[in-house]
Parts: sequence; structure tokens; C-alpha cells
Amino acid sequence: MDFLFTDEQTEIRRQVRALCSRFPDEYWRARDESGEFATDFYRAIAAAGWLGITIPHEYGGSGLGITEAALVMQTVAESGGASQACSSIHLGIFGLEPLIKFGTAEAKQEYLPRILRGDLHVSFAVTEPDAGTDTTRIKCFATRTDGGYVINGQKAFITKARESKKMLILTRTTPREAVKKKTDGMSLFFADIDPAHVEVREIHKAGRKSVDTNMLFIADLYVPDADLIGEAGRGFYYLLDGINPERILVAAEAVGIGRRAIERAVEYAKERVVFDRPIGKNQGIQFPLADSTAKLETAELMVYKAAWLYDRGEHCGKEANIAKYMAAEAACEAADRAVQVHGGYGYATDYDVERYWREARIFRLAPISQEMILNYIGEHVLGLPRSY
Amino acid sequence: MDFLFTDEQTEIRRQVRALCSRFPDEYWRARDESGEFATDFYRAIAAAGWLGITIPHEYGGSGLGITEAALVMQTVAESGGASQACSSIHLGIFGLEPLIKFGTAEAKQEYLPRILRGDLHVSFAVTEPDAGTDTTRIKCFATRTDGGYVINGQKAFITKARESKKMLILTRTTPREAVKKKTDGMSLFFADIDPAHVEVREIHKAGRKSVDTNMLFIADLYVPDADLIGEAGRGFYYLLDGINPERILVAAEAVGIGRRAIERAVEYAKERVVFDRPIGKNQGIQFPLADSTAKLETAELMVYKAAWLYDRGEHCGKEANIAKYMAAEAACEAADRAVQVHGGYGYATDYDVERYWREARIFRLAPISQEMILNYIGEHVLGLPRSY
Amino acid sequence: MDFLFTDEQTEIRRQVRALCSRFPDEYWRARDESGEFATDFYRAIAAAGWLGITIPHEYGGSGLGITEAALVMQTVAESGGASQACSSIHLGIFGLEPLIKFGTAEAKQEYLPRILRGDLHVSFAVTEPDAGTDTTRIKCFATRTDGGYVINGQKAFITKARESKKMLILTRTTPREAVKKKTDGMSLFFADIDPAHVEVREIHKAGRKSVDTNMLFIADLYVPDADLIGEAGRGFYYLLDGINPERILVAAEAVGIGRRAIERAVEYAKERVVFDRPIGKNQGIQFPLADSTAKLETAELMVYKAAWLYDRGEHCGKEANIAKYMAAEAACEAADRAVQVHGGYGYATDYDVERYWREARIFRLAPISQEMILNYIGEHVLGLPRSY
Amino acid sequence: MDFLFTDEQTEIRRQVRALCSRFPDEYWRARDESGEFATDFYRAIAAAGWLGITIPHEYGGSGLGITEAALVMQTVAESGGASQACSSIHLGIFGLEPLIKFGTAEAKQEYLPRILRGDLHVSFAVTEPDAGTDTTRIKCFATRTDGGYVINGQKAFITKARESKKMLILTRTTPREAVKKKTDGMSLFFADIDPAHVEVREIHKAGRKSVDTNMLFIADLYVPDADLIGEAGRGFYYLLDGINPERILVAAEAVGIGRRAIERAVEYAKERVVFDRPIGKNQGIQFPLADSTAKLETAELMVYKAAWLYDRGEHCGKEANIAKYMAAEAACEAADRAVQVHGGYGYATDYDVERYWREARIFRLAPISQEMILNYIGEHVLGLPRSY
Repeated sequence: MDFLFTDEQTEIRRQVRALCSRFPDEYWRARDESGEFATDFYRAIAAAGWLGITIPHEYGGSGLGITEAALVMQTVAESGGASQACSSIHLGIFGLEPLIKFGTAEAKQEYLPRILRGDLHVSFAVTEPDAGTDTTRIKCFATRTDGGYVINGQKAFITKARESKKMLILTRTTPREAVKKKTDGMSLFFADIDPAHVEVREIHKAGRKSVDTNMLFIADLYVPDADLIGEAGRGFYYLLDGINPERILVAAEAVGIGRRAIERAVEYAKERVVFDRPIGKNQGIQFPLADSTAKLETAELMVYKAAWLYDRGEHCGKEANIAKYMAAEAACEAADRAVQVHGGYGYATDYDVERYWREARIFRLAPISQEMILNYIGEHVLGLPRSY
Repeated sequence: MDFLFTDEQTEIRRQVRALCSRFPDEYWRARDESGEFATDFYRAIAAAGWLGITIPHEYGGSGLGITEAALVMQTVAESGGASQACSSIHLGIFGLEPLIKFGTAEAKQEYLPRILRGDLHVSFAVTEPDAGTDTTRIKCFATRTDGGYVINGQKAFITKARESKKMLILTRTTPREAVKKKTDGMSLFFADIDPAHVEVREIHKAGRKSVDTNMLFIADLYVPDADLIGEAGRGFYYLLDGINPERILVAAEAVGIGRRAIERAVEYAKERVVFDRPIGKNQGIQFPLADSTAKLETAELMVYKAAWLYDRGEHCGKEANIAKYMAAEAACEAADRAVQVHGGYGYATDYDVERYWREARIFRLAPISQEMILNYIGEHVLGLPRSY
Repeated sequence: MDFLFTDEQTEIRRQVRALCSRFPDEYWRARDESGEFATDFYRAIAAAGWLGITIPHEYGGSGLGITEAALVMQTVAESGGASQACSSIHLGIFGLEPLIKFGTAEAKQEYLPRILRGDLHVSFAVTEPDAGTDTTRIKCFATRTDGGYVINGQKAFITKARESKKMLILTRTTPREAVKKKTDGMSLFFADIDPAHVEVREIHKAGRKSVDTNMLFIADLYVPDADLIGEAGRGFYYLLDGINPERILVAAEAVGIGRRAIERAVEYAKERVVFDRPIGKNQGIQFPLADSTAKLETAELMVYKAAWLYDRGEHCGKEANIAKYMAAEAACEAADRAVQVHGGYGYATDYDVERYWREARIFRLAPISQEMILNYIGEHVLGLPRSY
Repeated sequence: MDFLFTDEQTEIRRQVRALCSRFPDEYWRARDESGEFATDFYRAIAAAGWLGITIPHEYGGSGLGITEAALVMQTVAESGGASQACSSIHLGIFGLEPLIKFGTAEAKQEYLPRILRGDLHVSFAVTEPDAGTDTTRIKCFATRTDGGYVINGQKAFITKARESKKMLILTRTTPREAVKKKTDGMSLFFADIDPAHVEVREIHKAGRKSVDTNMLFIADLYVPDADLIGEAGRGFYYLLDGINPERILVAAEAVGIGRRAIERAVEYAKERVVFDRPIGKNQGIQFPLADSTAKLETAELMVYKAAWLYDRGEHCGKEANIAKYMAAEAACEAADRAVQVHGGYGYATDYDVERYWREARIFRLAPISQEMILNYIGEHVLGLPRSY
């Protein structure tokens, strides 16, 4: 066993931390208020080469693993950037796997370098309002036409559709009723977000305000064959591979936010004097922070165990799910406690912890709810009967 | 024993519910976004006479008790108005006790009817940035001058200072070092919020956005003797009486928000179908809602036990504190669960539950933190040594 | 509303407390170790007339309500007697309802006075190993024969079968497959526990050791017609009435144990000095005790609301279930915290709190599990679809 | 990083598991009832060489690290042996460090081989009734005499004093008042438990019944100079080194019990059918088990991170404390849930889970309370002011 990061990994953290120090809490607080995309930050991350961290060398990336990507994300979150910062770069850091693994050489040559440079934002369009977690129920349909497909339907919770020119979109190409296996008959496209055929309607939300989340209303969107990824009808399977890394990264982000929240709470608890003593001297303040520290530290171990397994090509479903579950719980609780430690000031935007609290909340809902993770553990780890 | 509300009390709930139905979630959602004060609602409440519910008949009020006031507040919160609605009217519903009990007849005749009619908003200015919960540490000072006092200092977390022309303000008139008992030497005034001498700076916050919270920077504010409430130096004691009713009302509000959140979650859980079943059929969804229901129902009993005791003139410190503590915990948890039940939609403002979640959070911080309540119970109910 | 006990009710508590003071912790600790039934205590309770508290005057009882019975049970538990004391008298205090309401005048005249005097112990035999909570699945069968029935089958978790000469036993008289409604076809008997036909095998358990719990193996047990209660085939319905009172009493017992545990913990926390201070001065010790106090106080309100409703003949299913749920949670947590406050001594039998902890644990399992209560609330209070 | 056990470590687990399979739940259940020491098991462990796992080769041991010792302990606990099995061998597995590091060559040659063979049980006598966690307050005193010392005083919570002929005992040799540093002036002896001078009085307790815990009343116990370990007055420091390994081992044991409890609960949940479905199909049953699984898996990672750090000679205070804290919480919760899943049967000794529940409870109290660990994290990890 070996529980230490390599020097290279430690150096990644150092560099990302240095970059992020140019984007302090004030920067993110202002974006939370205005809803404006963090373009400066995004460009800085791209310029430093982090967007390509997991993209193969041949397309200009660093060819590193999920472990390194997780370190980047955790550090970004930990800087106070929280979910806003992470989500603004998430798909660049990881999410292009289907394109990388199953896309044509032409597509990769055309798009990956632009994504790396920060010139092309990409959205990930899978979820639909009526399907929820039950992906096989999607209704967005790509109908065969001359030299391509025409897509009609809706997508929900699509991140950064406002900034993106392209999207990885999953559609049915054969109706659910007409396939033997309900996971068959779905196809993945790297389609344009063409304003003439895709209406983007923003979903206002509790936090992470500078990274837009949207409904897409797609009407007669033409996609040429060249933008089909892999084989028609196999789209669902191309996504499966990305599920665990996504959970690992999200878990790393959660740990990062939780850490930041505790760090801020500890600082405040040392300085704030009430009844002639720093409030941190009270166990009612100190114990919850200590408990959260214990939880974040252990959750972090699971994040990197999962990442390490994934990077070795081993099964990591159990670990990735547990990491996401534990990290999300720990982060939400930590942020809530940071608010509580600040008393009334915890509720004021100027102290940032309420922002962490709002942003941490996402992790218990997305990309998969905690409940679905418990179902995964119950069914696939413990072998209990499916409950739903 | 008798656990039922009287017909009159039930009628109060019915009437308030009817009034609130004219101000649906959309109304409060819009105010949460714009930050604009809910003037229409405030006027409707005043017009219906609710602002005077606990004010004596002789000044035009209804002369009812905290029990009835709590019913009003719970119903207002429960309507979806949540903390925004409640805070917009809170001081009118209850908070003028020091004026009523210790004010001069002239002052009462002058101000109470205007407050009742909704023509005069009043702020309550006690808290200071450096004193926190330790009120005896306030530094705002009223210096004796010809025919009155001149106040200098700062106040923090002052609600509705933007709307208010008057404030109940607590100041030192004798320095802490110069009094025998540290709770002596403070005086209460019913002062003008004169823009020439009071700078009002809003504190942006996580929720309850249409009801402003502010820092006050007070420089040479003159207050005539007529606006001194009661006796100089006794101000602190005039406030003590209001502590328990405030906790009771806040507890009632918390129960109301919690109920609303669960109601919305239950509706959603019945309608939302994933994996071919309403999600409410899943115990992972159903059990947390059932558990929250149990907690809200029991907390509510304590709210009305405390109110009943207060209205009978009996000690209710234990009950009022427990009510606030339990109601705040139950409300925050209920709102959090309502978000979780809604999945990704729970994070979208359009579904309102995230607003309840943000607004419920206040109750664990204010008017007194949960930790200080545990200190109260530990020390005054259990007889354990003071811990801080 | 009125939240105070009557003088008569207060007097009941006083008397029961006085009686119980003759049976201190040492008494119950000794019985926990030896497993010997608390005969002295049982006789004292009988002699004082408490066994007949809810039995009508005409049979020698006091004809009081569940409210008074709950007060007795809470006080008994609170004395340190905990579950051992309560279970030893539970059926006498309440549980004979089917006999009282549906038994023949002869049966009542014959048995009730003997039960009242403490001369006749009775068991309640409903649960079966394979049926669990699903009572309609019981297999114990009473076959019609000359002048009576012959019972064969098994019963599980039968309390005090070692002491009892009689049992209220539920059997099928028509197989589940042969009835239209699965709750039909069951009959209730007041049968002998005849050692020749009923093998009583004790189930060793984690606590409540002096009150035996048993498996019954019943072979050809003859029951004359006179011992059939009410009408054949209607037995299930006769039991329904007793479900809510049972939950109320159990909830009262749980509150009693929880209170006792906290009381002992508070005493210890005041006296035990470590690092030159009573440990109760530490919020890490004090806050959990304060929190448990809040929970027990609110749970208690629900116990008496449910009791009050029942005694008025009103529906109390919601309240009785919530009371049991909340009281059981609060009691287990309180007892666990009492152990924790005592440090290593908390694990030693001599300090009693570990006994409270073991005995409180029952309430989350029996007479109905917390999970089934959540199902009840989800389905019958919130209107969610049945989940199982 | 590397999160996998070596082949050698995996083999240790396999062998220990095989050995333990000869001592099934029935074996431990019987000992829990009778209180009889598990001599057969102890001998089997000794015969297989496990007692010497961390003892240097030169004294016949295996010279392995805490990592391997933790694997042994976790596996023993996981077999169903739980705390009884672990505690019966704990000191042999680890705890002789002071003797190994600071004892004379003669003492080591004389005692270590006998301990290894299982011929000599040893107790660890530090805690005293009035000192609690504040070790510097011990009063047991060793007075200088000809060729040795004479010890007088009391010790509390001394494990296996009934079986042991020797004890590592900490005493004051200079009064607390007479030393500059309160941790000075204590001396460690490897003394006889001479019945003529040491009265052993058993403390009855909630669980772990076959491993006795005792009060020692020591009167004029002579200890020759040869049995002084290291230097007089330095005893306290010799113990410090063992604190972290002890917490690591205890954490490993806790993880083991938690795992076992969940394993049993899962089996039961698969088999037990109520309302026509295995109860494990209910999320109310399944989710708590899944959640506990997540917690145990993450806690386990911290156990082995701490062990790995210790074995490398690095600081592991943070990790060892977090491991103990998280593992104890996870284990107690897991065992409690295993009881709950079993319904009424969970309370019956025959199903074993109540035994795991009682035995897991120790870990939140000993060897150090969870509260003291939170103090450690608060103070030494977060840098908050000491709270007590």
C-alpha cells in the first residue's frame, strides 16, 4: 500500500492552487450575484493546459488520469471557487471520453484542440424532463434522413448550453418499444447547438449561478452522419464508461468545498470573540468542525482509491459510488456547519459560507441522487433485491 | 388537558389562509428574485387587522395573545410566504411590547394606530457587530444632552431599516465598566431613523431577500426625552419580556415552512413517475417525509404549549426555547428533504422548495442560535454548570 | 387548550413514584442479572390497585383512561424500573380490552377480579415466527370440535408465558385462502396455557431479562366454547382497538426511560470531575443531554395528546403512531448518551445506564417497528402510495 | 498510491479467517452467557503464532507491523468473535511495546517467549477511578524500598486481570505536586499480580463478558528493581508510543464488527419474507445497510492509512484518531441497524446481532472516548483553542 501522492501530483495541486489564488472569493461571489460566466477563470485554466489533462498527447492533451483530474477539481473547489468554478470547466477536464474513444479521427482532430485551448465549449445533453434517472425512457428522437439525422425533443438540466456551440447529445434512434433490450436503440451525436433549431431556456437555481443550466427545446435539428459518434444504436453504452469518472470528479469537488468551508469556519472560530473567548473554544462549535474534518478526510481517501482503480483499468463502481455518496454528505454537512459557526454572518453573502452551502447542495442531487447510489450499493455491492 | 384549538382560533387560521391564497408562491418567488418589499401583502395584512392582533383594544388592536399571533404566523409561513412573508410583518404582529408596556400614553396614542394601519414600519435595533449574543457588550452610546440624547454607534442585522421611519433602539447610557451589574445602564429609545444621521447599509443574504437586513451606522442622532422608553438605564430589562414570545413566534413560523415544504414534496412524490412508479412509493422518498411529519407535529405541540403558558402569565422559558429549537431543526430538515425529493428540480427556483430551504435556514441562527438554546436548557433546565 | 395535568393525574404520579421508590435501581439490576420475575413489585402494584386502572368499576377496577394508564407506566419506567417493570405489569394495566369489550359476563366475572388482585397473569399470543407484522399470515389454527376447538401451531415473542395460566390467543379458524377478506376468519380465545399441550421455550434476549419472552409450541390444545371471545372469525377486529392504546403506553414508557437516563447522566455530569472541572461543563457532554431533553419533552406532549384523544373516543392513529415513533427514538438516543456521558462506567452494570440503554432498544422494535410506523404515516397521514 | 494489500497480507487474512471458522457465533454466544474466558480460542491463536505478530524475530515473533496486526484483529472481529475475541488476545497482538522497547534483555528473554506461546497473560494497568482520561492525576504510588518498590493504590477497567499473572502498571513515583512537568514522575513496572497484595474485583458490564474487566485494589505490592521498565519517572512517555497503534487496532476491530453485523443483516434481509417479499427489497431496510457499508469501507481506508504511516515511522496521530472515531461510529450504527433489520429477533441472543451491538458500543468509550478524539482533532489538527 501507499497512501501518498507522487511529487508530480503534489506539483499539480501547487500549480492549480497558485492559479486559483488569482480568483479569490470576491470573484466568485460577484459571479454568483451577476450570473455572468467566469470567462477569465476559464481562459486561465485553458491557458495553463488543465482542460486537456486527460486528453491523449496526440491531441495536445497531457494524457494523465482521473487521479490527476480529481486533484485539479478538488483544488479548484477548495480555492473558494466551489461548484461555480468546477462546473465551468468540468466537461473540459473530463467528459469527452465518448468522443475520444469512439469518435472519428477527423472529429477528434477538429474539435479536441479547440476544446483544449478553451475556444469551444461543449454541453452534455442526456437528461430529459420525463425520463429522470431512467435514461432508457428518453424521448428525444433522431430520425434518419439524407446524409444524417433530424433531432426533435427536449433536454433538461443542460449545463453551459448558453456558452456552448456543440453538444454531446443522446437520442433514441429506435423507439424503446421496438428494441429487445431497452438500453439498445440510442445514439450519441456531437451536434451543433444551432439557435435556429435549439431553444435554450435557462433554469434559475439555488446556486452555481454563473454556470447556466438549461432546458433545450430541439426542433428539426439536422446532424450530418459525420457527427454520429461510434455506431448508431450503441450510444447508451458509450456513456457508461464515463459514469464512474464523473462520480469521482464530483466527489473530489465536494471534498474541496467541504474543506474550504471548514477552513473558513475555523478561521472565524479563532477570531470571533463572544463572552470573552474565541467561539472556537466552545465544544458546541469545535466538535462539529472536528467531526466534519474526520468525514472529509476519510471521504477523500475513497475518492483517490476509486480514481486509482479507474486509472489502472480496474472495476471501481463500488468505490466511485461510495466516494460520491460520502463526499456529498460530508460536504453538505461541513458547509452547513460553517454557516452555523458564523452565526448571523453565516447567512450574509459577504462571508461566502452560505455560497458554499448552496453550492454543496448540488452534490446530493447530481449527477445522480444519493438515493440512487444507495440503490446501487444495496443491489450491486450487497446483493439485495432491486427495490424500485 | 385539552389539545384542540378553539373555534375562534380555527377561524383565525381560516381567514389568514384565505388572505394568503391571494399571494401564492409565484408572488414570493418574484420578490425573492427582485428583493422588492412585499408591500401589497403587507397592506393586505394591515387592512385585515392582523398587525394589531396582540395590541390592546384601547389602541385599536385585537388584544389577543401569543397563541393567536403564533397561529397567524404559522399560517402565513405555511402558505408559501415562508420567512419573507413572516418577517415583513413580524414586528407588527409582535415586538412592540416594550412600547406598549413601558411607553408613555402619548407615544402609544401617536404610534400604535399608525403601526396598526400599516402606515409606519418599525425596526428593532439591538444587535451589534462586536457584541453578538452577549448583549451587555453593546457599544452604541446615547449621551445626555439638552432635552434628550445623542446616539452614536453601529447596529447589525437590523430588519426592514429601509422601510422603517422609527426604531426601538437599545444603547448604553452608562458604560459597562461603570455599572455594578452589567445588565444595568442600557436604555431603550423609540428613535427616528433619520437618514441624515443613520446610514443604512444592506447586508446581502442567502434568502428572505425582500425583507432587508442592514447595518446601521449612527452618527449624532438626536432623540428627545419623549422617545426614551421607560426609565433610563433599565432598557435591557424591558426587552427580556419579549424574548420568549419572539421564540414562540419564530417556532411557529418554522413549523409553517416545514409543513409547506413537506406538502409540496408529497404532491411531487405522488405525481412524479420514474421507473414506472410514483417516486413516493419508494421508502427512500417516503420515510424521510413521514419522519419530518412526525417531527413537525410534535414541535408544533410545544409551540402552542409555550404560547398557552405565556398567555396565562406563567413561566415558559423552557417551553419557548424547546419549541424554537425543535421547530427550527424540523423545518430545516423538512425543507432539505423537500429539495431532495424533487431531485434536480429541487434546486430550481421554479419549484419553490429551494426557497423554503434557504429561508428555513435562518431559524437555526436567529433570533438566537440553536447552540445558545442548548446552553439555556443545559444550564436552566438541567442545572448543569455554565459552559461558556 | 390546556396543557396541564389534573390534580388527580398529578396525584397518580405522586403515588406511583412513592411505590416505585421501594424498588430502586438495585432491585431491577439484580433481576436483570438473575432473570427472576419481579414478583414483589408486581404484588405491590396489584395491591395498590394499579392493575385495574382501566378496568371498569363493576369488575373492581378504577375505570380510568389511557391517559392515567400512561401516567402510571411513564412513572414506573422513570423510577429506574424501565422496561422490566413496565412489561411485568403491562397487560394488567392495559391489554384486556378484548375480554372487557367482547367477553361474556361470566368470563369477566371470573377472570377480571383475579387479574386485578394480581393472582392471574395473562399472556397475549398473537405474533408468529413466519407472519411477522403481517398478522393475516398466522398459521396457528383452531379446529372445531365437540363443544370447543383444538388449537395447533406456534407463537413467537410471547411475554410472561412462564408466569401466565391464561392467554389471549389469536388463531385462524378459517384458512386465509378460504376467506374473502384476509382479515376475516381469525378467532380470539382466552385459552389456558396448559403445559401438557403448550411447550414454552424462552427466547433469551438483550435486556428486560426478568420478563420472559417465549416461543409457544401448541399441540392439540383444547379450548371450550366458553373461552371464545366474541364471535368466531372476528378475532382480528377485536384486536384493532387495542393497537393505539398499546402504542401510547409504550411511548409513555419510552419517555420514562429516556427521562431516567438523562437524570442519571446529569447527576453524573455534575459530580464527575476530570481535568479539574465537572464534565457537565463541557458542551460535548452538556449539549447532547439538552438536546435529548428537548426531544423527550416534545415526545411526551404527543403521548398525552394521543391519550387524550383516545379517551375522548376520537381518532388517534396519527398521534399514537407519532408518539411511539418519536418517544422510541428519543429514549434510545437519551439512553445511549447517558452511557456515553458515564465514559467507561457507562458500560458497567453497576451504573444502570447500560441497562436503560438495552431496555430502551426494544421500543424501536416492538410492539411495531419504527419502519412500519413510517409506513403508516406515509400512507395514512400523507396519502402516499403503499410502499411494500 | 497503491490501495491494495500485498499477497502476504491477504494470506494473513485468509489464515486468520480459517482459524476463526472453528470458533463460530455459537462459541462466542456461549461465552457471552457464561462469562468463561475463551481459552480454546486463545490457545489456537497462540499456537498459530499470531500473538507474536509484532514481536521482533529475536524473541520468536514475526516482526511484522501494525498493518498486519490490524488485519488480524479486523478478521477476528469479522468472524463473529467481535470484541470478546479481540480483547482476549489484544495485549498479545500489541501492547508489549514498552517492554520490547524499554525492557531489559533479561526481562524480554524471560517473558516474551512465554507470552508468545500463550502461557502468560498480561494486563495493562493504567486507568484509575479518579483520574479518568487525565492520566497525570493517577494516585497509585510506588514507594522506593530496598531493591525495589512497594505499590499501593487502585486501578480501574483492567482487562484480563483474572487470567494474568503479570501487569504493565503505571504508578507515580514522585507526586504530581513535586514535579515540574505533570507528565514527569510516573514509572512503569512489569509487576506480578500477586493475589496476596492485589485484590481483583470484577466489573460486570454490558458486553464482552468473557473478557473480564476489573478493579484492582493494590496493597503493599513489592516489585523488584528488575521489573522497573526503563528509567524511573519516565513511565508516561513509554506509553505515548502505544497510543496510536492501540487506536488503529481498535478501529480495525470496530470495522470488523460492523462488517459482520451488516453481513448478517444482509443475509437475513434476503431470506426473511414479510408481506410476500424479502424485507431487503424495502428501501427502509436496504438503505441503512447500504449507508453503513459506505461508512465502513471509508473508515477502513483510514485504518490502513494510519497503520501504513505508523509502520513507516511517520506521524499518524491525525489518521489514527480519525480512524478510531469513524470506525467506532460506523460500527455502532451498523450493529444497531443489524438489530433493527432483524425486528424482534434482533433482540434475541440467538441471532447474535444484539451481541455485536453491545460489543461495538465499547469502541465509542474506550480506549478513549469519541469526545476526546474530537478534542484532539479540534486542537491538534484544526488549531482551535483547547476547550477543556
